[in-house]
Amino acid sequence: MRNYIFGKNTIANALAHNESICEVYLTPSFKDERISSLLRKSKVKSYVKSIREVEEMVGKVNHQGVVALIEEYKYVPIEDMIKKVEGKKDALFVMLDGIEDPHNLGAILRSVDAFGADGVIIGANRAAKLNATVAKVSTGAIEYVDVAMVTNLTQTINKLKEEGFWVVSSDGSATKDYREIDYNMRTLLVIGSEGFGISKLVLKNSDFITKIPMVGHVNSLNASVACALYLATIYAYRNPLK
Amino acid sequence: MRNYIFGKNTIANALAHNESICEVYLTPSFKDERISSLLRKSKVKSYVKSIREVEEMVGKVNHQGVVALIEEYKYVPIEDMIKKVEGKKDALFVMLDGIEDPHNLGAILRSVDAFGADGVIIGANRAAKLNATVAKVSTGAIEYVDVAMVTNLTQTINKLKEEGFWVVSSDGSATKDYREIDYNMRTLLVIGSEGFGISKLVLKNSDFITKIPMVGHVNSLNASVACALYLATIYAYRNPLK
Repeated sequence: MRNYIFGKNTIANALAHNESICEVYLTPSFKDERISSLLRKSKVKSYVKSIREVEEMVGKVNHQGVVALIEEYKYVPIEDMIKKVEGKKDALFVMLDGIEDPHNLGAILRSVDAFGADGVIIGANRAAKLNATVAKVSTGAIEYVDVAMVTNLTQTINKLKEEGFWVVSSDGSATKDYREIDYNMRTLLVIGSEGFGISKLVLKNSDFITKIPMVGHVNSLNASVACALYLATIYAYRNPLK
Repeated sequence: MRNYIFGKNTIANALAHNESICEVYLTPSFKDERISSLLRKSKVKSYVKSIREVEEMVGKVNHQGVVALIEEYKYVPIEDMIKKVEGKKDALFVMLDGIEDPHNLGAILRSVDAFGADGVIIGANRAAKLNATVAKVSTGAIEYVDVAMVTNLTQTINKLKEEGFWVVSSDGSATKDYREIDYNMRTLLVIGSEGFGISKLVLKNSDFITKIPMVGHVNSLNASVACALYLATIYAYRNPLK
């Protein structure tokens, strides 16, 4: 959803902390050292617009000569996501336990779309949120993939279990090969964070703890790569070659 | 391999263009606006060292009070890579046709290590080269994976065919599923660039053109994700579950 914000302080703060600004519009007489410097640093594009044009965007408000177009990304309530897959025997959700890198989140959305999973669940703490970087890396998948943000992953896991989901976690500590699972079931796939893997409580609530078999010296895969391998494996399991 | 460079111009140029600088050492009296500004921009760390310490690094040269530690990444000649897998019936090389994003190259090295492929071949033109970003994203895999840089991918393909390699390309135009291939053979896996896929001449010289089956709206995967899916599939094919 596209929206406008205005005023020097609002836009300075947004430029300093926020990745969701698309463009900034300045009236011909606008001057502000802080915003000019933030614009240079953030590489957000700015355009000069007449006062009339600016007021067509935001109305006759105290815009102080500066308006920004922002992109807001919408989350889907978890209840709606569950309702959407009602009766679907092979529903597939991906839960991200603490993924902090927006590049990873964007790449995961791309894979989730590519392999037809039904939605992504992220935690409200620390985790990467939907923003312009995520959107860019997702190459548009952000528009198609439902994302729910929940405050408590364990509670959500228990709710999904009640809905018939089986919890398959990806963790290096596992002894089970990820190809050993019968994925013809409602599946909640849990992928851990880049640095810390899956939290203890989430692991404890998993039905299957599995790993991707690997050789080599570096004993982990990038989180978005691991997620794609699971999604491709689940897809291949459910769509075997004739 | 770690090495030192010195002198104001050399280091200013390296900071401006080169990603391979690890740290910079300055003598207590060193002052140079350009280098200070480049250091701030590049976020390379700098330390004050006595003239004696600096000269222990580079000797009694005209260092102008500034020395940098650089990391050089070594390529393996393609002939050596071929020799190393002599007699290996399931040798596996990955050829990257125009991958330009160092993040993708780093992620690919990580997966190549994880799934035990024998080496990576990149082209000398345009393609991402080994540098500090690649090293960081590879989380150390750069130290273990042999990388050859060649001037002509098609010539290299023909040389590898003579060595008994079969060329499996990943391309969205394919009709063959990537799971249909018998990977119990010497395999050259070819992954195309982020924007343009695999070049015509390379496709023409491929034995198998294959694709990863996908549903969804976004009709391609990230190059490093696609590469990992092939490597995991080849690994799984060669190491079936009992």
